[in-house]
Amino acid sequence: MGRRIHNFNAGPAALPLPVLEEVQLELLDYKGSGMSILELSHRSKWFDNVINEAVERTRRLLNLGDDFEVLFIQGGASLQFCMIPMNLALPGKPVEYVNTGTWSTKAIKEAQIQGKDVVEIASSEDRNFSYIPGNLTVNPDAAYLHFTSNNTIKGTQWSRFPDAGAVPLICDMSSDIMSRSFDPRPFGLIYAGAQKNIGPAGTALVMIRKDMLERVPDDIPTMLKYSTFAGKNSMFNTPACIVIYIISLVMKWLEETIGGLENMDAINREKGALIYGCIDASDFYQGTAAKDSRSLMNVTFRLPNEDLEKRFVAEALEAGLGGLKGHRSVGGCRASIYNATGIDGVSALVDFMKEFEKKNG
Amino acid sequence: MGRRIHNFNAGPAALPLPVLEEVQLELLDYKGSGMSILELSHRSKWFDNVINEAVERTRRLLNLGDDFEVLFIQGGASLQFCMIPMNLALPGKPVEYVNTGTWSTKAIKEAQIQGKDVVEIASSEDRNFSYIPGNLTVNPDAAYLHFTSNNTIKGTQWSRFPDAGAVPLICDMSSDIMSRSFDPRPFGLIYAGAQKNIGPAGTALVMIRKDMLERVPDDIPTMLKYSTFAGKNSMFNTPACIVIYIISLVMKWLEETIGGLENMDAINREKGALIYGCIDASDFYQGTAAKDSRSLMNVTFRLPNEDLEKRFVAEALEAGLGGLKGHRSVGGCRASIYNATGIDGVSALVDFMKEFEKKNG
Repeated sequence: MGRRIHNFNAGPAALPLPVLEEVQLELLDYKGSGMSILELSHRSKWFDNVINEAVERTRRLLNLGDDFEVLFIQGGASLQFCMIPMNLALPGKPVEYVNTGTWSTKAIKEAQIQGKDVVEIASSEDRNFSYIPGNLTVNPDAAYLHFTSNNTIKGTQWSRFPDAGAVPLICDMSSDIMSRSFDPRPFGLIYAGAQKNIGPAGTALVMIRKDMLERVPDDIPTMLKYSTFAGKNSMFNTPACIVIYIISLVMKWLEETIGGLENMDAINREKGALIYGCIDASDFYQGTAAKDSRSLMNVTFRLPNEDLEKRFVAEALEAGLGGLKGHRSVGGCRASIYNATGIDGVSALVDFMKEFEKKNG
Repeated sequence: MGRRIHNFNAGPAALPLPVLEEVQLELLDYKGSGMSILELSHRSKWFDNVINEAVERTRRLLNLGDDFEVLFIQGGASLQFCMIPMNLALPGKPVEYVNTGTWSTKAIKEAQIQGKDVVEIASSEDRNFSYIPGNLTVNPDAAYLHFTSNNTIKGTQWSRFPDAGAVPLICDMSSDIMSRSFDPRPFGLIYAGAQKNIGPAGTALVMIRKDMLERVPDDIPTMLKYSTFAGKNSMFNTPACIVIYIISLVMKWLEETIGGLENMDAINREKGALIYGCIDASDFYQGTAAKDSRSLMNVTFRLPNEDLEKRFVAEALEAGLGGLKGHRSVGGCRASIYNATGIDGVSALVDFMKEFEKKNG
């Protein structure tokens, strides 16, 4: 094995090393089957165990009741942007969205393309999406309220979820799923592309409350119906087996090594305190998100000028700290510190930041 | 590494051992990046090289001209069943289909769900889909003619593709893509779920002739438009990176180890001759497909009774020959002998078949 770096990529992102080692170890012969997990039938007892384990661990970690279905659907969160209004809008009722940046904007656009009655009830666009809007007024007649729990590009995160009364919440948790505990009961649907906090790219995890399935229209394509996936344990057709397998290993790591989401949350808070502490103690680094809206997953910051930012990213990589360039649409720097990035990685980054400031400040 | 079996699964299916070994070797550190291929950004130079290599090797292997786009789209062939009519039907023109079994039937159903003017111009349902229909009459005004080149469940395969004149052919080649050479020019679109001949499950390979992109309607969801994938080298959103990476390795194996599709075809013919020769020399084994329609990928056969079939499958597995049970919808036995199943595997199976017949015939 070569040198491993500390990986601050925004997604696809770091995976726990023990997970990668287990994948590697059993890659040519999965549990005595004589086949690779890549070659196993999805209708085999081996893969049944894999997908059932991924579902059951998800249920336990998130305290999901029996009223939720846990599904794996290819196409990432981006396909969910269109599946949600297609399946869950209701005739004569508005669908409501909060706009907190690029991903919310895309979700809104896909509902509009379908001609749904889209109402943007709040937005933080007025200050470049640098904060999470408060004081929402939700129409009690809305079919759902959609929001994005964490915004990878702008580095903001909802610290408390909105209260929409009886209106089902629908949330894109792609970039902070499994980073903390929350009460799932107000949610009609929660979705997350796997490639940030729970696995490699290639599948979205979708948790849907069973009563929402009653809304699915008959006349939409089979592969775009949530009911198709719910009725077949996500295996109406061949799923992305390798991705679901790795998700199951990440869930095992969360349960058995980390000890659940309360522990994970505590670790994430410690990581955030370290790096935001460094930023706040400095005039050299400037956080870009409002303090009360800061993300514990994606820490966005600027240096005094773009030349320094370029050097920062390049010298960090030489020091074994990768993926610190901000999203191409906003520039600056970004440290994505998902679950699999440990306190050791964040400490190493903070040490580097202090050193870099000393030399260049 | 444990014992590896000869894998006759219908899909997900065997992969070339050198491909699996390369994946395993570089799983923790992809080409000196310090990251796993599972953790690499899809916007990185490393992944750019991976996807470009997969595209270029596909172009070379299939002799695709510059007028074809090579795309990777999640959701398998089943999502293509709905994307094809959604993108490529034309107002006022029929879409034509040949029905050769389960997968064709599903493709037809998805066009009907969308209210398209679907015409089934030929079907082999009258004899339980055991043959490929000949003498097609294609309406020159049709938007396209869709067919399934190989039928995994019934064990039939088109040995010569239909002539539809100027009407673009659209073909589901999920189970025989890259098994032989053909002239791609009459095709408007070719698609294949990866999990049979070119990689693990989680992506369809889609090759679309550029003039077909002009048909894509503006008002369909972004993630369901071929033009979205064509305009962004399949990276409008995060693709199934690990699947595309393994596809690129399988393509490398096809080009550099096998030496291209003419060689692959010759090997597949040799494998077919071995196993069909065994079936034809015996009264114990009965092939289920018409001789002129036999598949070189999925060999379906029956034994004198179901008890013997059960014992055959079980004893074969003990002898290191796995996946020989027929599809649950038809019963019997099936040996899927895709590209990655070598002559050694087929010889071992034929030896076992002869031995089993001797003991039980």
